[in-house]
Amino acid sequence: MALIVQKFGGSSVADAERVRHVAEIVTRTYDQGNDVIVVVSAQGDTTDDLIEKAKEINPNPSKREMDMLLSTGEQISISLLAMAIEKLGYPVISLTGWQIGMKTNSKYSNARIRLCDTERLQSELDKRKIIIVAGFQGINKYDDITTLGRGGSDTTAVAIAAVMKAQLCQIYTDVDGVYTADPRKVPTAVKLDEITFDEMLELASMGAQVLHNRSVELAKKYDVNMEVVSSFNDVPGTKVKEVVKVEKMLVRGVAKDTDVMRVTILGVVDEPGIAFKIFSTLAAKGVNVDIIIQCLAQSGKNDISFTVKQSEKEIAKAAVEGLADRITFDKISYSEDVAKVSIVGAGMVSNPGVAAQMFEALAEREINIQMISTSEIKVSVLIAEEEADRAVRAIHDMFIKN
Amino acid sequence: MALIVQKFGGSSVADAERVRHVAEIVTRTYDQGNDVIVVVSAQGDTTDDLIEKAKEINPNPSKREMDMLLSTGEQISISLLAMAIEKLGYPVISLTGWQIGMKTNSKYSNARIRLCDTERLQSELDKRKIIIVAGFQGINKYDDITTLGRGGSDTTAVAIAAVMKAQLCQIYTDVDGVYTADPRKVPTAVKLDEITFDEMLELASMGAQVLHNRSVELAKKYDVNMEVVSSFNDVPGTKVKEVVKVEKMLVRGVAKDTDVMRVTILGVVDEPGIAFKIFSTLAAKGVNVDIIIQCLAQSGKNDISFTVKQSEKEIAKAAVEGLADRITFDKISYSEDVAKVSIVGAGMVSNPGVAAQMFEALAEREINIQMISTSEIKVSVLIAEEEADRAVRAIHDMFIKN
Repeated sequence: MALIVQKFGGSSVADAERVRHVAEIVTRTYDQGNDVIVVVSAQGDTTDDLIEKAKEINPNPSKREMDMLLSTGEQISISLLAMAIEKLGYPVISLTGWQIGMKTNSKYSNARIRLCDTERLQSELDKRKIIIVAGFQGINKYDDITTLGRGGSDTTAVAIAAVMKAQLCQIYTDVDGVYTADPRKVPTAVKLDEITFDEMLELASMGAQVLHNRSVELAKKYDVNMEVVSSFNDVPGTKVKEVVKVEKMLVRGVAKDTDVMRVTILGVVDEPGIAFKIFSTLAAKGVNVDIIIQCLAQSGKNDISFTVKQSEKEIAKAAVEGLADRITFDKISYSEDVAKVSIVGAGMVSNPGVAAQMFEALAEREINIQMISTSEIKVSVLIAEEEADRAVRAIHDMFIKN
Repeated sequence: MALIVQKFGGSSVADAERVRHVAEIVTRTYDQGNDVIVVVSAQGDTTDDLIEKAKEINPNPSKREMDMLLSTGEQISISLLAMAIEKLGYPVISLTGWQIGMKTNSKYSNARIRLCDTERLQSELDKRKIIIVAGFQGINKYDDITTLGRGGSDTTAVAIAAVMKAQLCQIYTDVDGVYTADPRKVPTAVKLDEITFDEMLELASMGAQVLHNRSVELAKKYDVNMEVVSSFNDVPGTKVKEVVKVEKMLVRGVAKDTDVMRVTILGVVDEPGIAFKIFSTLAAKGVNVDIIIQCLAQSGKNDISFTVKQSEKEIAKAAVEGLADRITFDKISYSEDVAKVSIVGAGMVSNPGVAAQMFEALAEREINIQMISTSEIKVSVLIAEEEADRAVRAIHDMFIKN
């Protein structure tokens, strides 16, 4: 008998009809002889409705009380799904975060899982019950309710799969797997049967938000087999594992990210420790810096460019402009009309020609590259934002054949 | 420093405006130098909305999952009220039933409180925090969520007042106290300043549902001073205590109950144990029997009449008709167009003329009495339902002067 953890997001349980549909998927899995633990998020707009209710009373409530409020959303979902499964005549029990002992740190609204108890879950499995668990929530050492932040229910599912040593952790979503590029933008995009954790992490950290990074990191750490699968279409999804079958495909995905801004510090007087001064200042302010490039501009002076998220623009600007009393430079320029386009693939590391092929695809379309960054399984380029979609299609056509 | 427990029902926290109003009442009490624990119910129609959601999915869900669902209502209320109090700048924390260790038996949807821990409550009071507790909910020995049934939040408030040895337990409602009769029906009804637990119990068990019986029983058992007070008007309420000041008023209240049905078993052959057979059968089916009268009809035969709730009609009928193979009788008759009118007052016990005065008031209006029942602090008569309001006014005018 295998144990399968299945996670359903808010849109999958948005109304009575969809809840019944999830109940069918779950009971079918149980009928196949598996133990099943199901993790669910809050129904559709419940969380937004609750936030609105709160803001009407206090525009700036404490995060502790927000978590107390928001965690009711998942509690509603789990009881409704349990009722739908009862109606089909199966043994079922719903459990909240505190009931399964999902222990987190005390960072309200963005807590990290510390430990998940197995006792209650195991005792219900021993009774052959289908277990419905509230995602996104836990308790801290004071027994206060915490929530896990974005993608929290995915993380709940992976954590349970890890401690319960589940054979598979299925993440049901409104897409039917991981694609080589955004299918709405790139008609030739194909669905991947398998992808490695690292590839998934690189794709997730860019536009392709099928899975949240934290859940993939956790799955990689505890070697949990994940699968991204559609709750609407009954077709095979994409498996996420440590090692995947070697395929012809070197590049596993092409993605773009437009939440990016280029900062260039021109004419920095070169002296030891310059880069440290700049980037430690940014790190101290909590600014995430991505691509960094340093070019020798003229004798004794450098131009240093890097990218940050546009959403962190104000804090990055303040940090950079505060550098004036620590280093000497000519001026600072900013550009927001840029996009980052990346290719990801574990096979790239042993194929040095891949980056060159990517540049060739862009050159053919006369798309100018502003910055380049490479890692073992990723090549990213910074280009003009208006050329990003064209660039993704060009690169996709170069690497991925149907 | 005094500890005051304040309970607010669903209509008192129905929307943002009312939640803010409750926050003002609570913080005013805190400003007067008191420790304050607040118990709240679910907002207005939340419970009904949740029940509807459930029924759409499963018309017959398990009570365990219903309690999981419904307990979210109070959790939403406590966090919103805590946010409103945070906005006013006061230290506050909301706590669910399980967080304060409100232990109940396992009778889902109608659980009884076994024990309430004091540790968490005391530790928050020690930090001088206003505590907001979810009413109506607890946990059983499996750590599963239970709800307390009708009037459950009142019971939560009294239980907390008992274990924390509060000086006062205030029940805020939409009426401003306990009246001698329903003020909508009897214009001369007056508000009582004080009432004993026993009087309140007798009144509550009839029409006057200001407080639920279970909460009054608990308050009597642990000698908790209760007060019924309006959340809308800032006027003194009615205090409920063990002993009240002796007043001129013998009769403390007049109430009617129309959820009553008369059952008469005609021509029962008299033999030892007849009454036991009849009423043990009804008790075994869970039917509550109220007034019982046995009259000698003819030689060796009795007529036995009793009243039951109309809402228990079907189960009572089935039980009575099942008696045919155990006792011998002529026939059974039922009447639903009856009402019970009662007077309640601790002073009555030493005033034997009170019942006679009541019958006089009815005789003057030519209202026919079908059945009579008396206890130490109550006299009830069964009369035609259409005459009930007239009877209440007549009796009220007889006993209670403004």
